[in-house]
Amino acid sequence: MIARIIITALVAACVLPQEAVAGQLESWNDGPSKAAIVDFVTRVTAVGGPDYIPQEQRIATFDNDGTLWSEQPLYFQLAFAIDRVKALAPRHPEWKNQEPFKAVIDNDKKALLASGKKGLLQLMMASHAGMTARQFRDIVNAWVATAKHPRFNRPYTDLVFQPMLELLAYLRANDFKTYIVSGGGIAFMRPWAQKVYGIPPEQVVGSSIKTTFEIRDGEPVIVRLPEIDFIDDKAGKPVGIHKFIGRRPIAAFGNSDGDHQMLQWTMAGKGARLAVLIHHTDAKREWAYDRKSKIGHLDKAWDEAIEKGWTVVDMKKEWKVIYPFQMNKQ
Amino acid sequence: MIARIIITALVAACVLPQEAVAGQLESWNDGPSKAAIVDFVTRVTAVGGPDYIPQEQRIATFDNDGTLWSEQPLYFQLAFAIDRVKALAPRHPEWKNQEPFKAVIDNDKKALLASGKKGLLQLMMASHAGMTARQFRDIVNAWVATAKHPRFNRPYTDLVFQPMLELLAYLRANDFKTYIVSGGGIAFMRPWAQKVYGIPPEQVVGSSIKTTFEIRDGEPVIVRLPEIDFIDDKAGKPVGIHKFIGRRPIAAFGNSDGDHQMLQWTMAGKGARLAVLIHHTDAKREWAYDRKSKIGHLDKAWDEAIEKGWTVVDMKKEWKVIYPFQMNKQ
Repeated sequence: MIARIIITALVAACVLPQEAVAGQLESWNDGPSKAAIVDFVTRVTAVGGPDYIPQEQRIATFDNDGTLWSEQPLYFQLAFAIDRVKALAPRHPEWKNQEPFKAVIDNDKKALLASGKKGLLQLMMASHAGMTARQFRDIVNAWVATAKHPRFNRPYTDLVFQPMLELLAYLRANDFKTYIVSGGGIAFMRPWAQKVYGIPPEQVVGSSIKTTFEIRDGEPVIVRLPEIDFIDDKAGKPVGIHKFIGRRPIAAFGNSDGDHQMLQWTMAGKGARLAVLIHHTDAKREWAYDRKSKIGHLDKAWDEAIEKGWTVVDMKKEWKVIYPFQMNKQ
Repeated sequence: MIARIIITALVAACVLPQEAVAGQLESWNDGPSKAAIVDFVTRVTAVGGPDYIPQEQRIATFDNDGTLWSEQPLYFQLAFAIDRVKALAPRHPEWKNQEPFKAVIDNDKKALLASGKKGLLQLMMASHAGMTARQFRDIVNAWVATAKHPRFNRPYTDLVFQPMLELLAYLRANDFKTYIVSGGGIAFMRPWAQKVYGIPPEQVVGSSIKTTFEIRDGEPVIVRLPEIDFIDDKAGKPVGIHKFIGRRPIAAFGNSDGDHQMLQWTMAGKGARLAVLIHHTDAKREWAYDRKSKIGHLDKAWDEAIEKGWTVVDMKKEWKVIYPFQMNKQ
């Protein structure tokens, strides 16, 4: 009798029933997306079932900007770069007459846009390179702790999607390994991804600049160089997944054409697969944009999603709440 | 009473006593290296102790060639490249008059050495690039299954070090995450690292060539390009660790100057740290080489190990057995 109680207790402690876990997607309405996600997870975790996938192969990759947190009115990392350039400006008097820095200092959005990709790159290098890895981490942490989003007047990390936090937890409870695979900077995301998403540094894949190892004053340091190492966007996403993870995801989540190839690569694997696009349809609670937007441009990936029957989440209809801070206001 | 029994059973099921786990290092003699390793692991896992390190920070990195398996009479991956070039030679009649390929076809070791780094690179690119990632994986698997080491007439993957397999298992039983950080090719190691070392693809860091994502005949593929992407050796090792793992190891294991910077980077972290060098001292059972060897050159790292009191494993004195296949012959 006691033995049976102990065994029951051990089993209860180790195996969480499927229903209980699915019930944790509480910010998702009972729409087609929740049904598709729960169906997929139920199938790949059903031991002995035709779609069963062993635990170690349960890799799920998530885009970050527009998929796990908002990306409007401009990518949050770009807001960081702008704030950083403004903070550094007193040390760079030459920037007053030099684009794109002048545009940033003058808050001239039009001139900033006119500086194009080259200007953006200069901005990123001026703000992201020229210090040690540890110094950069401290700079990011300080910004995350103090900067406020212009629309919500809250820390940027408050603008993560509550339904996606629940989805990450749901997948992990079902023995998935959850990765970020983002066009954003790997060194910009790693300092806070564990705290905000429960994703450790080694499960963050992103764009990077080159670094070098040096001994400075007897202490080994990693130094950040103003040179692109890898762009983890579009066709770079499957390349990044192959490089960092070395196996194909069985589930991938994105929101734009920047995620298209990651979804294609995921779906081309044998066996059960899941591709999900977050469609920004909620201008009132978040933002509404797709084919015509420069940020989060969703066009070809959407066409293929419709054609192939991939899951497209209608944010307005399918999410009860957008951000965690709205949880008490339902 | 029953509640107490259940709690006791749960605790017993989750916590493996330290002694039982340390007992698994059975191929290690009770020398200074085993003592240093067990002392370190005991300290960092002692909850509430002054050197306690949380589970998620227990990152241990291992060099591969000369640390987890042998590397003589030449790096096993170079043996693979030579075999591969010979297999491809019929399709490349021009190689008959073109170094370094001519040297490989003629088994002319002197001419091969004379071709230098440039020749080696040509050999690597001819054998490692120009196919899809999946094709390369299949080629590696086929080679591993059939090629035999010249001295032992056994598959190369039989020449892994039994004491190191036990060490990997011991660390994992103590909630360490074990990584390979090798100068060898990441795509050469990943196909068999799980089976041989219990290390999954996503925990293998190594040198790489560039890849690209393409759609071929409607199917997405990763294609291997004949261009160096990253050399994970010497100062490249901490750079690779920073890039792939994003946090500093608390323990690192190597055998040559190629691992020197990885050990420096590891030891410069705050808190308890462990640096270990495998010293090849056993000409009879394996090979004996250090300062004068081109392969596995151990000189500056050894000097620093002596100066700083890092752990240096005397293979001949401290390992009861070298390879798993010798286990029954003790």
